[in-house]
Amino acid sequence: MSNQKLFNVAVVGATGAVGEQIIRLLAERNFPIGELKLLSSARSAGKKINFKGQEITIEEAKPESFRNVDIALFSAGGDVSRALVPEAIKHGTICVDNTSAFRMDPDTPLVVPEVNIDKINENKGVIANPNCSTIQMVQALKPLYDRYGISRIIVSTYQAVSGAGASAIRETLRQSRAVLDGQPVEPQILPVGSLPVKHQIAFNAIPQIDKFVDNGFTYEEMKMINETKKIMGDESLEVTATCVRIPVVYGHSESVYVELKSDFDVEEVKNILAEAPGIVLQDNPAEQLYPLATEAAGKLETFVGRVRRDLSNPRALNMWIVSDNLLKGAAWNAVQIAEYIAIEK
Amino acid sequence: MSNQKLFNVAVVGATGAVGEQIIRLLAERNFPIGELKLLSSARSAGKKINFKGQEITIEEAKPESFRNVDIALFSAGGDVSRALVPEAIKHGTICVDNTSAFRMDPDTPLVVPEVNIDKINENKGVIANPNCSTIQMVQALKPLYDRYGISRIIVSTYQAVSGAGASAIRETLRQSRAVLDGQPVEPQILPVGSLPVKHQIAFNAIPQIDKFVDNGFTYEEMKMINETKKIMGDESLEVTATCVRIPVVYGHSESVYVELKSDFDVEEVKNILAEAPGIVLQDNPAEQLYPLATEAAGKLETFVGRVRRDLSNPRALNMWIVSDNLLKGAAWNAVQIAEYIAIEK
Repeated sequence: MSNQKLFNVAVVGATGAVGEQIIRLLAERNFPIGELKLLSSARSAGKKINFKGQEITIEEAKPESFRNVDIALFSAGGDVSRALVPEAIKHGTICVDNTSAFRMDPDTPLVVPEVNIDKINENKGVIANPNCSTIQMVQALKPLYDRYGISRIIVSTYQAVSGAGASAIRETLRQSRAVLDGQPVEPQILPVGSLPVKHQIAFNAIPQIDKFVDNGFTYEEMKMINETKKIMGDESLEVTATCVRIPVVYGHSESVYVELKSDFDVEEVKNILAEAPGIVLQDNPAEQLYPLATEAAGKLETFVGRVRRDLSNPRALNMWIVSDNLLKGAAWNAVQIAEYIAIEK
Repeated sequence: MSNQKLFNVAVVGATGAVGEQIIRLLAERNFPIGELKLLSSARSAGKKINFKGQEITIEEAKPESFRNVDIALFSAGGDVSRALVPEAIKHGTICVDNTSAFRMDPDTPLVVPEVNIDKINENKGVIANPNCSTIQMVQALKPLYDRYGISRIIVSTYQAVSGAGASAIRETLRQSRAVLDGQPVEPQILPVGSLPVKHQIAFNAIPQIDKFVDNGFTYEEMKMINETKKIMGDESLEVTATCVRIPVVYGHSESVYVELKSDFDVEEVKNILAEAPGIVLQDNPAEQLYPLATEAAGKLETFVGRVRRDLSNPRALNMWIVSDNLLKGAAWNAVQIAEYIAIEK
C-alpha cells in the first residue's frame, strides 16, 4: 500500500486458528500498522508472538484495551464480540468481526469484498465477516448473479475440521491414528463442543455443524441461507443448504446447484468465473483438473470447477467450489476488509 | 428358507471386496446351496476359501465353468460380465450381475428388491444389480414416490473408498498414515485406476468417481441419473447428481433434495420411511441422532435422517441417506435377488 498513514490495529483472539492467520496476513501484506495489539483471554495473556521481527506480548482483552486502536479484528467467539465490540466502538475503533454476533444485525454490513465492498461505508463501528462456507459460495456466484440473475441455490458442503478450531484438528488427527492402529476412538469435540453427544470424525461424514434449529436445519445451514440473501441483497433468493463435516483439515468444498434467471452458455460462464476477482477456474475434465481441498489449503483464492449445465434443467448449473476456510473463509476476508477501511480513511 | 430345493451357485469375482461379502452372506443366510463354485481370474485360481466349514478351491472363470450352475453372481468387472454372462446364459444359468455391463440394456431388469422385485420375472438370463450410490437412494425414495410422487431429485454424494476396491482402501489407509507422519503422499489408484492423473484421497474430497462423459458429468453421476429413472420406471423424473469420493472406508452418505408432486406432512414422511422395508429412520436432532457411515458399516439396512421440509420450496424435502456400499449397495442387494430367484423356482 502506498498510503503512508499508519493504523493502530488490535487482533482479538490472537492465539486462535483464525487469529494466527490474521497476524500472518497483516505481516505478509505489509498492512500499514502503527502499533499492533494482540489480545486474548486471560489464559493466553503473557505469551509472546513474533511479528515482523518484533516480539509482542499478548494482553488480556478488556474494554479499555481499545483506547487509541483504529481497527480491531475479532475472532474470539460470539460472546467475546458481543461483550467487547460495543466497548471498542465507544473508543472510535472500527471493528471487523469474524463471529456470527452481528452478521444478521440490520445495521451491520456483512461484507465479502468481491461482492459488496460498497457496504463498508454504511458501518456503525462494526463490519461483519460472513461464515466461511458462505463467503466462498457468494464470491463464486456473484458474477453469475450480476450477469444472469439467480433464482435458487442448493448447496451441500464438505467442510474441514479446522472450522471447528485447533482442538478439532488435533482430535481428527488423533482419531485417524487410532483407527489406523486399531485402537478405540473416543470422540471429545466434534460435532459441537458444547453439546453432549460426540461422533467419530475420522473416516466418517457428520451431517451436523453447529446446533440444530427447530426447523430441522442446523445454525450452520441457516447461516448459509440467511447470509447469502443478505450479502447478495436479495431476499427473494431461494437457498437450501446441507452442511457436513468430513475428515479434511483445511479447505471447504461445496457441491452447488444454481438456477439462473436467463439463458446462458457454459463457456461464457467459465470465462466469467475465470475473470472474476479472487476466483481461479480449475475446470478441465480431460485432464482431471478440478478444485481439491488439499491444493486450495494455504491459498487466498476461491477455486471453481466441475462447471456443467444441469441435464434436468437447462437453466441450471452445477459446480464445485473450494477455498481455504481459515483464509478467504475467515482471516483473509477480514484482512481484505481492514485494507479497504485503511484506504477509505 | 423352508424351500428344500437346492441350487448350484457360482460366485464370479470371489476374491474381490464384493465377492467376499457375497460368500459371507450366502453362508449367513443359509442360502439353499447344492454346490458352490468360486470363480476368479487365473491369478487368484488355486486359493482356498472356507465356506461353512468346507474348503473350496477357487477356479479360473471360463465359459464352461457354468455347466450345471443354476445361479451365478458376478462382481468381477464389466469386461468379465460382458464376456461370461452370455456363456452362462447358454448353460441355463440365471445371472445376477453387479457390474454396469447390462444395467441400461432394455432387456435386462435393473432390480432393487424393495423397489421393483416384480421385474425379476422379465429377465432373459441376467438381472442387473444397480450402482451402489443409486440403490440406497431409490430404496429410500420409493415409498415417498408411491405416496406423493416425485418430480425432481438433486443429490450430492459422500462416497467411501471401498467402492473403488480393496486397493483403494489400502491406498487410503497408507496415505492417511503418511500424512500423519509428515511423509510424502504418492497417489497411485484414485480417483480412477485406469486414468493417468491421481489425486490424494487422505484428508481430501475428490469430485470425480469414474471417468468423465462429454457433458461434464462423470459416469458415476450418469449412472445415478439413468439408473434411478429405470428402476423407478419413470423417464420424466428429473435427477441431478454430483458424486464425490471422501476418506471414508465403508458406507456411502448422500445429501438428497427431493421435490414431491403433492403436499406432505414431515411427520407422515418420517413414519412412511420408518415403516419402509430395509429402511431405518435415524432422525432426532435433539439427541444428535442421524445416520453415520461408521455406524452403517457392516449393516444390511439403509439409514435415513435429517428429514426436513425445504425452506425455499414447501413441496421439497431434504434428507441424509447412508448405507454400506459393499452390502446393500452391492453384495446384499445381489444376494436378495438370488433369494427371490430361488423362491420363484
